[in-house]
Amino acid sequence: MKTHVTGAADDGFTALNPAYEAAVRESFARQTLMSTLGASIAHVAPGEVHLRLPYDPALCQQNGYLHAGAIASVADSANGYAAYTLAPPDTDVLAVEFKINLLAPARGAEFLACGRVLRAGRTLTVCLADVLAIDGGGRTSIATMLSTLIVRPRQPG
Amino acid sequence: MKTHVTGAADDGFTALNPAYEAAVRESFARQTLMSTLGASIAHVAPGEVHLRLPYDPALCQQNGYLHAGAIASVADSANGYAAYTLAPPDTDVLAVEFKINLLAPARGAEFLACGRVLRAGRTLTVCLADVLAIDGGGRTSIATMLSTLIVRPRQPG
Amino acid sequence: MKTHVTGAADDGFTALNPAYEAAVRESFARQTLMSTLGASIAHVAPGEVHLRLPYDPALCQQNGYLHAGAIASVADSANGYAAYTLAPPDTDVLAVEFKINLLAPARGAEFLACGRVLRAGRTLTVCLADVLAIDGGGRTSIATMLSTLIVRPRQPG
Amino acid sequence: MKTHVTGAADDGFTALNPAYEAAVRESFARQTLMSTLGASIAHVAPGEVHLRLPYDPALCQQNGYLHAGAIASVADSANGYAAYTLAPPDTDVLAVEFKINLLAPARGAEFLACGRVLRAGRTLTVCLADVLAIDGGGRTSIATMLSTLIVRPRQPG
Repeated sequence: MKTHVTGAADDGFTALNPAYEAAVRESFARQTLMSTLGASIAHVAPGEVHLRLPYDPALCQQNGYLHAGAIASVADSANGYAAYTLAPPDTDVLAVEFKINLLAPARGAEFLACGRVLRAGRTLTVCLADVLAIDGGGRTSIATMLSTLIVRPRQPG
Repeated sequence: MKTHVTGAADDGFTALNPAYEAAVRESFARQTLMSTLGASIAHVAPGEVHLRLPYDPALCQQNGYLHAGAIASVADSANGYAAYTLAPPDTDVLAVEFKINLLAPARGAEFLACGRVLRAGRTLTVCLADVLAIDGGGRTSIATMLSTLIVRPRQPG
Repeated sequence: MKTHVTGAADDGFTALNPAYEAAVRESFARQTLMSTLGASIAHVAPGEVHLRLPYDPALCQQNGYLHAGAIASVADSANGYAAYTLAPPDTDVLAVEFKINLLAPARGAEFLACGRVLRAGRTLTVCLADVLAIDGGGRTSIATMLSTLIVRPRQPG
Repeated sequence: MKTHVTGAADDGFTALNPAYEAAVRESFARQTLMSTLGASIAHVAPGEVHLRLPYDPALCQQNGYLHAGAIASVADSANGYAAYTLAPPDTDVLAVEFKINLLAPARGAEFLACGRVLRAGRTLTVCLADVLAIDGGGRTSIATMLSTLIVRPRQPG
């Protein structure tokens, strides 16, 4: 018997917007911070978005590891787009707040921020992201982010 | 192939203290808030502790649902004791901070706070708790807590 | 010249509900957890509510200090009612999430949770609470809580 | 009589490292993410560091406002360096976790992240940052970050 305990994915998510993947890709392309950092989309599914960020010496803190702000940036976008996959058409999703725990030094060849919806509400959505460092065959969880997002009608203009 | 993604349990936890379960039960018995609230231990394993809290009309907010503070109290203790199962003997575990998202109204016959270690460090441990409302056969996730705990040598006296 | 920077109170808050204080007191009286813990209202003003909690050996963690859950409970209610002072009539305020840092052991004769609105929006309000331990003439800040609250039309019944 | 309540600065901070300002500037210069974003130091004092970030269309989210990740990056560094001003010589300060609330859209000509120590402990330091948008003469608080940092002996190499 499988019991749902902490952080277990609710696999039954259904996208309200049949064009959810195109909507995610179109919005992501407008997030200039993502291209400045070098992030790209690795996976899109209802309730789940993974973003990839290669290591870049231009994104580091004082010891040469990736800066927590770079990690937080991709985790925030991964959670935001995970929420966006479940949002109705013609809405926008904005971060209300997030909290990130840094679990290990961010060293590795690349990083994968895996955002996932925990609960999708009419107004607010809660997401959890795991950020993995990938180096050779190894994967290490280096950060966890818990986010609250708000779904709003898209502003004209 | 099973990949570890967000919040997946690290099943390989080993308790450093062979008497970890007795240590958890002895410390829990001294947490007077837990008996004031009516909470009890439901499960103890290395890296994981579940606490049970029956619904009680004396623990509510203004609409008759369990107060977020009561939920946070058992989630905080569940995470603290999950961390404590992995701590060396003669140490104490204290909460540094926690963040909780309330996902749904806390209604139900009883509640289960399932605390789990995400990363156990020498000084700091990070835990994630899921709080479930149980009513008849149904289980609903009503809250998620992400906590940072510190392991310290036990203070004499 | 002193400039208001971090966390400076926005002194210009105006209550939309002329009966805001009565509304706070009436709702607080229905929060049974508050009377179970022994908390009472110390101060109500637009955008600010202080709650008092006397030390009680029935509310402790394993070392005899106040349990973080008891502190979080009064800080959550202080922030919730601070938000409620600025809400329109016939609305309800619910906690979406909160994060608390425990700054010092919670010892003292009594505790004061001072909740204050940082930003009041139409849907979401953000509050910051400081929890002080009071012992003799001394006051020590023992915790800080940052909360997000949602304002909703009151549910009938 | 003025009483210190929520978030009031503890003005009595004393730097243990007489060269604290040089230490902050030297470390900041090694944070390559800060120069990639275009951030610079605006103010350094014991327990307080302000960082300036000009608006840049390369750091935006989908609507042309500054991305929450860019804001979080400078707030995280402001809090980290505020903690660092109070750290002993030959130590390093690392972020354990942080939580940020986005209070308003990040529009403006430039942004000021004002980090301030709430409590400096031997191992852990807690900081609060306020991020202001500056446009013409106006200043708007757009975000608040509550952070936990750890002070560690500097690693050789």
